Amino acid sequence: MPPPAAVVFAESTADVADAVRPASQYATPVIPFGVGSSLEGHLLAVQGGISIDVSRMNKVVSVNAEDLTVTVQPGVTRKQLNDEIRSTGLFFPIDPGADASLGGMSATRASGTNAVRYGTMRENVLGLEVVTASGETIRTGTRAKKSSAGYDLTRLFVGSEGTLGVITEVTLRLYPIPEAISAAICSFPSIEAAVRTTIRVIQLGVPIARVELIDTNTVRMVNAHSKLGLREEPMLLMEFHGSPAGVKEQAETVQEIASEFGGNAFEWAATPEERTRLWTARHNAYFAAVQSRPGCKVISTDTCVPISRLADCLLDSVAEADASGIPYFPVGHVGDGNFHFGYLLDPNLPEERVTAEALNHKLVSRALALEGTCTGEHGVGLHKMGFPVDEAGAGAVEMMRTIKRALDPKNIMNPGKIFAI
Amino acid sequence: MPPPAAVVFAESTADVADAVRPASQYATPVIPFGVGSSLEGHLLAVQGGISIDVSRMNKVVSVNAEDLTVTVQPGVTRKQLNDEIRSTGLFFPIDPGADASLGGMSATRASGTNAVRYGTMRENVLGLEVVTASGETIRTGTRAKKSSAGYDLTRLFVGSEGTLGVITEVTLRLYPIPEAISAAICSFPSIEAAVRTTIRVIQLGVPIARVELIDTNTVRMVNAHSKLGLREEPMLLMEFHGSPAGVKEQAETVQEIASEFGGNAFEWAATPEERTRLWTARHNAYFAAVQSRPGCKVISTDTCVPISRLADCLLDSVAEADASGIPYFPVGHVGDGNFHFGYLLDPNLPEERVTAEALNHKLVSRALALEGTCTGEHGVGLHKMGFPVDEAGAGAVEMMRTIKRALDPKNIMNPGKIFAI
Repeated sequence: MPPPAAVVFAESTADVADAVRPASQYATPVIPFGVGSSLEGHLLAVQGGISIDVSRMNKVVSVNAEDLTVTVQPGVTRKQLNDEIRSTGLFFPIDPGADASLGGMSATRASGTNAVRYGTMRENVLGLEVVTASGETIRTGTRAKKSSAGYDLTRLFVGSEGTLGVITEVTLRLYPIPEAISAAICSFPSIEAAVRTTIRVIQLGVPIARVELIDTNTVRMVNAHSKLGLREEPMLLMEFHGSPAGVKEQAETVQEIASEFGGNAFEWAATPEERTRLWTARHNAYFAAVQSRPGCKVISTDTCVPISRLADCLLDSVAEADASGIPYFPVGHVGDGNFHFGYLLDPNLPEERVTAEALNHKLVSRALALEGTCTGEHGVGLHKMGFPVDEAGAGAVEMMRTIKRALDPKNIMNPGKIFAI
Repeated sequence: MPPPAAVVFAESTADVADAVRPASQYATPVIPFGVGSSLEGHLLAVQGGISIDVSRMNKVVSVNAEDLTVTVQPGVTRKQLNDEIRSTGLFFPIDPGADASLGGMSATRASGTNAVRYGTMRENVLGLEVVTASGETIRTGTRAKKSSAGYDLTRLFVGSEGTLGVITEVTLRLYPIPEAISAAICSFPSIEAAVRTTIRVIQLGVPIARVELIDTNTVRMVNAHSKLGLREEPMLLMEFHGSPAGVKEQAETVQEIASEFGGNAFEWAATPEERTRLWTARHNAYFAAVQSRPGCKVISTDTCVPISRLADCLLDSVAEADASGIPYFPVGHVGDGNFHFGYLLDPNLPEERVTAEALNHKLVSRALALEGTCTGEHGVGLHKMGFPVDEAGAGAVEMMRTIKRALDPKNIMNPGKIFAI
């Protein structure tokens, strides 16, 4: 893949507009770039053109603590944001693992570990500033919590993967840091027991903040990578937010359900530091897995299904992956019905890629048959391009393309992503 | 205003498509109709054409209790839905007051009293079936809780007010009926005290399910209409959902805050029947107000502002309305920063309408200056058509129109709503 012909290091919305206007005039592709943590090839210059790097647009523009909102430039990362607003007693919960930029997270409709309680970028972006394909700057949304004033342009841009415009400012919802936060791990005799526990927790409406599945093999990798001594069994890593009494109540309910499915007693993270260490280990599962097969490449899946279908979808896919002989690791935001398989491929063995792609196709077909989606949070990008037609039907995808053609008639905004041409 | 040239009583998606296809061929306007509870003239045949009445499409298609989802035809009303799913232990929380159809609620991005905790139709529609302007039937979304698979067509149709297609099926999120539900009223020495209490409750992140403001005069009207003996002072009508302990905790926190602002002791609805009676009285405030000035017409406002601006926005507007001499009633979903003024006009005094429209314009201007929106939940329709440009800017509205032209090139879908032509 060739690099882009040029990189613009934008320092302001005006810089972005100044780059897009001539690009529009000369029909040159424009690829927005945040911190480069996309997993689906969003940032590649597949048709050449200009990369607009917004990582220098990294200012928190305004914090409105009393309204629980904040406005940031697109290059601000989620960790930076939470560091900068710590003194307000508020936080931004969406956590896709990587320290992604908030512009990029908006563009891919990211979610991650906290989404089961707080929703995704879809629910947490109040408004945007966008430079359109013609180089015009528009604003979508207001700081009001809700609105019925015309089409929801904010949510059209959230998840549009840079194909409709360059996001230059994001207004987000914030939340009070919970009075009490407790993290616990619970080991289970099988993946199925862990999944069935999760399903029950969600069906009962327990407002659990995080519930992540890690299988035995991944626990082993994480132990090696993060120097932890976690019991090498399938486990749920959970977090509870609320008042002290509320957290206790939630945890008791979940412990009771877990016990019914053979789960062990919760092991609690005793201190905030230990909690951070656990979540860092979870977020590093990807790197732990890569380290387990030096030199490997990873193909990542991202299906999401209705919660009642999660056990079927996940267990059949585990059996298939086991049978294939390809090393892999499954991790999952299981409370949302969303999980990832990472297939660890030896780049010198092209047949492994063929096998992994076949596994991914089977997994997506299974998820769609179970009324789910091909991508819960990573986006379509390059790698999932064929799936939206299978998922939504040709008519719905043609409607998306009609919108794309109308808003970007020269097809300059991140061309060749989501749609092949 | 002339009636539509014809009414199609659709009994299926095929009926809708059969009506839209010739309408498309002959460029005839199509106006979707649910139960007729729109407040903004959405249902009027301003350019003639065919009204497609979907009120006979009133089947609950499938309940997936274990996934907390339900799929309904568009003519199912919210009360009907909750009656039909009662045995599952689940409920659909969005409650705009009127027993609106779920197709119509989707089309206007409705919300109402429970939105402060459960969100609006924006957050609670998972997917749609839609007959497009060409008569094709498409599906948007899946039953998965989240997705990043291309443009968010679901949220493009939610709030599009019938101008992009006819909604023929809606998949919704459901919630477990809370273990404990308690409703309380609290009287305050002033509107300001009630509003400042609300602001503090929201800023602290108390997960209150409902918090409605009613002023003294409206309490008086409601007492007369619903035969209640509520204390004739500004009041908050609240509801708490959760576990018994959680509800108690929330209520104690709110009572403490209310006391700081001079609020009286909570008066609790002792039984579910009494609770229903209170909320019915709240929902009938509109009719109570109309009854207070027999023969009057109502102009209703619908601004929504960031919560910190609510006191400024509401109190200045109360002062202005008081000074105008026009009878009015303010009610508000104050937890969302959303409130309505209903101006009660004598239709024989045209100068009253002029005054009321001027008050509404001032109120909207104030809300926009405070970073709010002209419509929190009713939609633009006919009556608020000028405001979106003031709110979002000409560029954003032009983008909406570009989408409208692309998806409905003959401008047959509810033409003359949201946009003048």
